Amino acid sequence: MTRERIFLFDTTLRDGQQTQGVQFSTPEKHQIAQALDTLGIDYIEGGWPGANPTDSAFFEQPPKTRATFTAFGMTKRAGISAENDDVLAAVLNAGTGAVCLVGKTHDFHVEKALGISLPENTANISQSFAHLAAQGREAIFDAEHFFDGYKSNPDYALEAVHAAHDAGARWVALCDTNGGTLPHQIHEITKAVIASGITGDRLGIHTHNDTENAVAGSLAAVDAGARQIQGTLNGLGERCGNANLTALIPILLLKEPYASQFETGVSVEALAGLTRTSRMLDDILNRVPQKQAAFVGASAFAHKAGLHASAILKDPTTYEHVDPASVGNARIIPMSNQAGQSNLRRRLAEMGLEVAPKDPALPRILDRIKAREAEGYSYDTAQASFELLARDELGLLPEFFEVKRYRVTIERRKNKRDQMVSLSEAVVVVKVDGQKMLSVSESMDALGTDRGPVNALAKALAKDLGRYQKFVEDIRLVDFKVRITQGGTEAVTRVIIDSEDGQGRRWSTVGVSANIVDASFEALLDAIRWKLVQDGVT
Amino acid sequence: MTRERIFLFDTTLRDGQQTQGVQFSTPEKHQIAQALDTLGIDYIEGGWPGANPTDSAFFEQPPKTRATFTAFGMTKRAGISAENDDVLAAVLNAGTGAVCLVGKTHDFHVEKALGISLPENTANISQSFAHLAAQGREAIFDAEHFFDGYKSNPDYALEAVHAAHDAGARWVALCDTNGGTLPHQIHEITKAVIASGITGDRLGIHTHNDTENAVAGSLAAVDAGARQIQGTLNGLGERCGNANLTALIPILLLKEPYASQFETGVSVEALAGLTRTSRMLDDILNRVPQKQAAFVGASAFAHKAGLHASAILKDPTTYEHVDPASVGNARIIPMSNQAGQSNLRRRLAEMGLEVAPKDPALPRILDRIKAREAEGYSYDTAQASFELLARDELGLLPEFFEVKRYRVTIERRKNKRDQMVSLSEAVVVVKVDGQKMLSVSESMDALGTDRGPVNALAKALAKDLGRYQKFVEDIRLVDFKVRITQGGTEAVTRVIIDSEDGQGRRWSTVGVSANIVDASFEALLDAIRWKLVQDGVT
Repeated sequence: MTRERIFLFDTTLRDGQQTQGVQFSTPEKHQIAQALDTLGIDYIEGGWPGANPTDSAFFEQPPKTRATFTAFGMTKRAGISAENDDVLAAVLNAGTGAVCLVGKTHDFHVEKALGISLPENTANISQSFAHLAAQGREAIFDAEHFFDGYKSNPDYALEAVHAAHDAGARWVALCDTNGGTLPHQIHEITKAVIASGITGDRLGIHTHNDTENAVAGSLAAVDAGARQIQGTLNGLGERCGNANLTALIPILLLKEPYASQFETGVSVEALAGLTRTSRMLDDILNRVPQKQAAFVGASAFAHKAGLHASAILKDPTTYEHVDPASVGNARIIPMSNQAGQSNLRRRLAEMGLEVAPKDPALPRILDRIKAREAEGYSYDTAQASFELLARDELGLLPEFFEVKRYRVTIERRKNKRDQMVSLSEAVVVVKVDGQKMLSVSESMDALGTDRGPVNALAKALAKDLGRYQKFVEDIRLVDFKVRITQGGTEAVTRVIIDSEDGQGRRWSTVGVSANIVDASFEALLDAIRWKLVQDGVT
Repeated sequence: MTRERIFLFDTTLRDGQQTQGVQFSTPEKHQIAQALDTLGIDYIEGGWPGANPTDSAFFEQPPKTRATFTAFGMTKRAGISAENDDVLAAVLNAGTGAVCLVGKTHDFHVEKALGISLPENTANISQSFAHLAAQGREAIFDAEHFFDGYKSNPDYALEAVHAAHDAGARWVALCDTNGGTLPHQIHEITKAVIASGITGDRLGIHTHNDTENAVAGSLAAVDAGARQIQGTLNGLGERCGNANLTALIPILLLKEPYASQFETGVSVEALAGLTRTSRMLDDILNRVPQKQAAFVGASAFAHKAGLHASAILKDPTTYEHVDPASVGNARIIPMSNQAGQSNLRRRLAEMGLEVAPKDPALPRILDRIKAREAEGYSYDTAQASFELLARDELGLLPEFFEVKRYRVTIERRKNKRDQMVSLSEAVVVVKVDGQKMLSVSESMDALGTDRGPVNALAKALAKDLGRYQKFVEDIRLVDFKVRITQGGTEAVTRVIIDSEDGQGRRWSTVGVSANIVDASFEALLDAIRWKLVQDGVT
């Protein structure tokens, strides 16, 4: 059976840039365009040539892509010809293979926002697309507010899209601009458009996520016959975002009936790069990736519930609808208070700790985790602290050294130039092999910035540890997360510290206290102890 | 026309707690249950009595709600009677009005995960629900993996749900446990269940967001006839989360055909508290609220595109599918454009600051906010710090007092009983009306707990402020949030402090620094200055 082709149209660089706080530079646009091309997208909409300096610069040096590079603009304005509209001319002058023009199809908007008559608007659409056809460009009509327009005045909405279609538009993209149309209505209205004489292989769907239904709305249009899907990576876009291609692509490739019925430009190999592509965009935007994102989120294949985790160990298909590797993601079985003993044993085995099934330490470890979680600890990410706790119960944790006391002083005062400056100083007293060691450090970094009390404490702690010194010297603090949480009935501070060493190992530890410095100190101590364990120190 | 009733079943406290990194304390569970009850949810599932200490403690002192408080558990195990199953007994002993038991309906899981025969599993379900019925409890069957089960072996999946139904279950909740079933399949299979003899008013739907279709899947089941929807606030839940009630509730109340066809327990007035409820949950979790969340996100009604923003000013319905006020949200027209200044003026007027349209302070305030946000500040919640910044530019902020310096010392050492104890001490030097004041405080509270350096600093700062003293004495620190964020290219700490005074006023201030104590001090200073402004001190 031959599979029908679905075309993917990406608008991350145009509609995606309408996200609050998002503004791509020209090099960033190039980087994203290359990633989209590698993924196998059919159309890459780059922006609106002439609308702003960044977009214009991007179109002056367009990316070299296999995908059809597309310029966005609007249909000609009333009162001038398509040939004489300078805004339209700027779009055409970009010389792209395809041009996508937005135009009104909702009577209310024609009369209210544009302030022109319905026939005038139809003529603007028709003449704009005739002009594109005369220039031999692949033309796409972005039918703005189409679904709302159809609900208000179906005859006019159809007249408007037929004007573009009949004048030579290759695609008519039905837009749910305000994002308020639910999937079943998208399905019905798309069918009505096909019944009016525009075949599905000329129809696109463009949805927004204002009711959390953008993906479902796109699928509903495909079910009705539409063969082009417009969306963005990670669902970027104005308000609640556009249809998320990062969810739609794996659905089309992995889920039935789509996988058997359709093909796209995305190969199975490219699909395995999807998670990486999604994270790359977050990196560019300096955003924390959404853990719960479908398919590509860090939690998308994390199994926390005890019953689920133990079944996953027997067979991953018990609680996974697709293989995480197919989208370049990975399975996670975190430690949590609901995980069972079998999960615990597997976790320990991964850390090199083989424990017999009936070992009495297993329930003790689980109990201690439960009690600690009630105090505000969390071991989902702090795997190194978890391992230390388990080793302690198993009798596999040397004491190494004893912290006798510490003191941190944070001062803020005027310097000689009358500027307020702050500085922290930490003193740590440790007993190693019966010998007392005093260390002191301050918080200033090489650039003269005060990095705060935790930094001073970390430096002092790692400054003189006797025979352990050489093992801890290459530890670097790479991240520090703070959360106020509940420990019993009181608010406590939970600190999670990520550390790294010279061999590129990276580990996370946790500390909890009402005093944030104390909580940090506890996490720092764990970080050092874990490193000593890993290096085989006794 | 009478409208049919849709019942809302919330599982934030049970399935929502399966979210990676989420662990509610007992007081937090109470707070969330009260918020759900105020919203008008029908069933509040509180957790699994007996599964862990937090859940058990919560059920020992259950919340007083109008909603039906529900305990979760599993059907009896094979080989023992329902009466003798201690796990089931712990669930029933919680004494809740309703009990929800999960059981298998997928042949593969019965045989693979449970390792029992299909008839044995059917008997376990049947006997468990007969036991519940005998105890007079409202019973709900959580039909695990129902959709996958139906696809694999429709006869057995139906046999399993009929076993619960026929034994007296009030509801059969069809669960798409792995989240892989697409909306059109949910629709078809739900119809098949109804055709098999279980009426829609006995059917619930429980979906997960693994393909970003959980909301659409829930609606598809309602379209097919199901009348109970299970979900969580903000879509919390294992992996990609559960169906998001925060999106489903406004759809049911505001969007057609649902609004005309159905009623729920949520009133129009309660709906207007939805955004607040969503943010409250993020506060408890110390999560950054998702800006792009449907209906309740900070960006959900933000209009960035120039054409959209100007049309919105003419008529909001041009680019909004619902009124933001209906869900307690607000329209945002970014300050960067012309509309930004009128927006700012309105915000200042709300604070009692009337500013003329062309006042040169307006662009200065906007520029300063932009620059500060680039440094890591955030004024979304810290309204008091925002007001101080604006007053400063408007020349309406007295200097009050000057901080000359401060010093905080944190010590941890062994006490006489050889226990490790910690104590913080803060010294603050302030100049008021030309006079230098030295104050010192320590961090021990009345119960002897060390509350940490920020607490000591707050007490010292408010200890002696000369003629301002009487105005600041009633300030109480009620919350303290810490986030590591990006300031320019470096990680900085953002601290938000919530304060309250004797008149019940509550306000939030922000501080940012690489040094967490410094960031806290800045927020504390703002808290005092805002109070002095409000009290009319000059």
